Amino acid sequence: MPDTQLMDKLVSLAKRRGFIFQSSEIYGGVGSVWDYGPLGVELKKNLKERWWRSMVYERDDIEGLDAAILMHPRVWEASGHVEGFTDPLVDCRTCKARFRADQLDQGQCPQKPSKKPGEAEQCNLTEPRMFNLMFRTFMGPVEDDASVVYLRPETAQGIYVNYLNVMQAARQKPPFGIAQIGKAFRNEITPGNFIFRTREFEQMEMQFFVKPGEDERWFEEWKERRMQWHRDVGITPDKLRFHEHASEELAHYAKKAFDIEYEFPFGWQEFEGIHNRTDFDLKRHMEYSGKKLEYVDTATKERYVPYIIETSLGADRLALVVLVDAYREEEVEGEQRVVLGLKPAIAPIKAGVFPLVKKDGMPEVAQRICDDLRSRFPIFYDDGGSIGRRYRRQDEAGTPFGITVDGQTLEDQTVTVRDRDSLVQERVSADRLVGYLEERLTS
Amino acid sequence: MPDTQLMDKLVSLAKRRGFIFQSSEIYGGVGSVWDYGPLGVELKKNLKERWWRSMVYERDDIEGLDAAILMHPRVWEASGHVEGFTDPLVDCRTCKARFRADQLDQGQCPQKPSKKPGEAEQCNLTEPRMFNLMFRTFMGPVEDDASVVYLRPETAQGIYVNYLNVMQAARQKPPFGIAQIGKAFRNEITPGNFIFRTREFEQMEMQFFVKPGEDERWFEEWKERRMQWHRDVGITPDKLRFHEHASEELAHYAKKAFDIEYEFPFGWQEFEGIHNRTDFDLKRHMEYSGKKLEYVDTATKERYVPYIIETSLGADRLALVVLVDAYREEEVEGEQRVVLGLKPAIAPIKAGVFPLVKKDGMPEVAQRICDDLRSRFPIFYDDGGSIGRRYRRQDEAGTPFGITVDGQTLEDQTVTVRDRDSLVQERVSADRLVGYLEERLTS
Repeated sequence: MPDTQLMDKLVSLAKRRGFIFQSSEIYGGVGSVWDYGPLGVELKKNLKERWWRSMVYERDDIEGLDAAILMHPRVWEASGHVEGFTDPLVDCRTCKARFRADQLDQGQCPQKPSKKPGEAEQCNLTEPRMFNLMFRTFMGPVEDDASVVYLRPETAQGIYVNYLNVMQAARQKPPFGIAQIGKAFRNEITPGNFIFRTREFEQMEMQFFVKPGEDERWFEEWKERRMQWHRDVGITPDKLRFHEHASEELAHYAKKAFDIEYEFPFGWQEFEGIHNRTDFDLKRHMEYSGKKLEYVDTATKERYVPYIIETSLGADRLALVVLVDAYREEEVEGEQRVVLGLKPAIAPIKAGVFPLVKKDGMPEVAQRICDDLRSRFPIFYDDGGSIGRRYRRQDEAGTPFGITVDGQTLEDQTVTVRDRDSLVQERVSADRLVGYLEERLTS
Repeated sequence: MPDTQLMDKLVSLAKRRGFIFQSSEIYGGVGSVWDYGPLGVELKKNLKERWWRSMVYERDDIEGLDAAILMHPRVWEASGHVEGFTDPLVDCRTCKARFRADQLDQGQCPQKPSKKPGEAEQCNLTEPRMFNLMFRTFMGPVEDDASVVYLRPETAQGIYVNYLNVMQAARQKPPFGIAQIGKAFRNEITPGNFIFRTREFEQMEMQFFVKPGEDERWFEEWKERRMQWHRDVGITPDKLRFHEHASEELAHYAKKAFDIEYEFPFGWQEFEGIHNRTDFDLKRHMEYSGKKLEYVDTATKERYVPYIIETSLGADRLALVVLVDAYREEEVEGEQRVVLGLKPAIAPIKAGVFPLVKKDGMPEVAQRICDDLRSRFPIFYDDGGSIGRRYRRQDEAGTPFGITVDGQTLEDQTVTVRDRDSLVQERVSADRLVGYLEERLTS
């Protein structure tokens, strides 16, 4: 299947089943901004909760934080974003469109594909100018320089400026980490590929503060842990790989950086980065704020500015990885089906409940089962259309189990439970359903 | 205790224990923006999860949604915000400060309190001008009118523009609701009272779509349900009341509106609103988008634009209600203590684990208990300072249980479990702790 076809099919499925809608669709949409529908919000919630659990709940050396999107503008001077978070832009004098200079093929206006490579030097493009990717707005009633604030382009800085407060309040000391999930914004010139590159996105970042000299060991530890986490989510291992940044690729703050890449239909692309940011950020914040951001060990009197190992994961990119990886088309029961083979633990709906027919009291029994299960799991009741069509809808939603109330149910209180992947149907006593599902949903 | 004192004490406790920090504090802070620390993020998470559970998981007629903050600018023309979401501002020609005209006492500049009321007409204030409270920014590389986008001032519109997509994908029909938790932004001129009125805030909104004529019944239903929900969170019933909007208070879109108010130290103030928004919003979006936003019943051929009952709760305000309501100072065990009497189900940390002394193997046993419990509950290990000081710290954090490993533990594997409120200490076998806590934490 050609790559663009798969993405188109996924966008269409995402809308049809309520995973992801185009933002403000009735107004023609907003460039590269997306809304999560009923299933999308649960999928993302499951992924975020799983990450938070592995970072914050299951460890005693990582604390949670939720810093605001609006921060003091000096933060972005200290971080280097005001000066350096830019893309080079060129205008085409002929067609008036604007492009990223570093993405133009041989310096040609992409609107003029008829031009031959040899004529590139005659192309009517302006010299590149630098354009800052931060969204600017104004706080308070006057739009002047003094009131400029930015929408944060990364959540990391919210962690850095709070690190002393968190360390003290939570009685931590290095090595320790701070984890945060939150929105960030980048005024991308060429966003695209569905929810891969968007102007508004959500990050899951963990910043780990260590003693200088222990940074390389911790870097390796986090690099391996993060890759393992993705495998545990059920992502196909062959489609995951590391990409190490060569020295010329490294960001100004980084000593070492590895991307975790996934093989998307549009190629291998990064969706998480593990960075050794050294003491760059904290030292810059010391310089710009005039505050001491050292760690002082009260017992040994030792003092140092911690090094920071960052694990930075895009929540929307992870959702896309999981959706792409789970998508398959196959022939079953004599017909074509589309199925999202999501791991049960992250599936938005855990089971569909269906009365085989809309009579003989089956809907009432099915509704009762639904009500019983609903307090424990997200459940979907469906009595519309043939049972085959109802199975197909839940296959597309990634629902791992289908529970059907049929004639036999009315006699012996058993239902059929259909496995989404194997299609095997088991008869299970209705009153054992909670335990049955609980056991299978942890995988 | 005077009111301002209580708020000051709460702000100080919130910082000390890691509930809430001032945003960008090392740079002097950002006006009225706050960051949630390790305990704050868990408190808010518990409240949001409880709300989501009651709205989405426990009902089959409400779907979740997570719409983006950035929306098409026409949305805010349709909603009336571009034209009407304004405050009247006046400038003082003498001191150059700017104020909300409707909050000035007798039209006087508040910087000049020495002026007598009789002299008010001589005060040197400009005529009021209207100031829009939406934050503006620019999408794409050119800052012109065509690229203006707003940070949403309410989450509700994200639900309205998606309602047909959600209804179809989730196979719903009126009466049904859409629930959403997300950030919104208002460029308030006079924010304040800690996290009560902030420029960046989080809303928990549920919009319920009903057939016209059934709106008044559903309004009453949601009004009662929402009040009961707050009582169930453990908020003192005497400090909760309804305030009905008189006809002159009603927003342009509302047929009827009730606030749920809490008696804060700074007076009775709204923290949730229940509104009958009629078909105002959907009709405006039909007009501005040119799209039909009717519900059509395929069976009866009936068609109508649904009425909307809105329940709109401020997540930060709810957190403040819960903190204020839980705060108490009292004398126990012969000394003064500050305690947050949070209901166990919403407390950020469920139990503190303490070795009585830092020797005789007690820290190792306590650490082992900690590790056992951590996979089930948020737990805090503390071996610093006297046991009394450690209890006090957890009292301030609102931790309902304190588990102490002492000499007897080493002999019979029992620990003491101290109840935060009654101070009663029970001896419990270490291997029964999970069950013991599980039972008590559901309350």
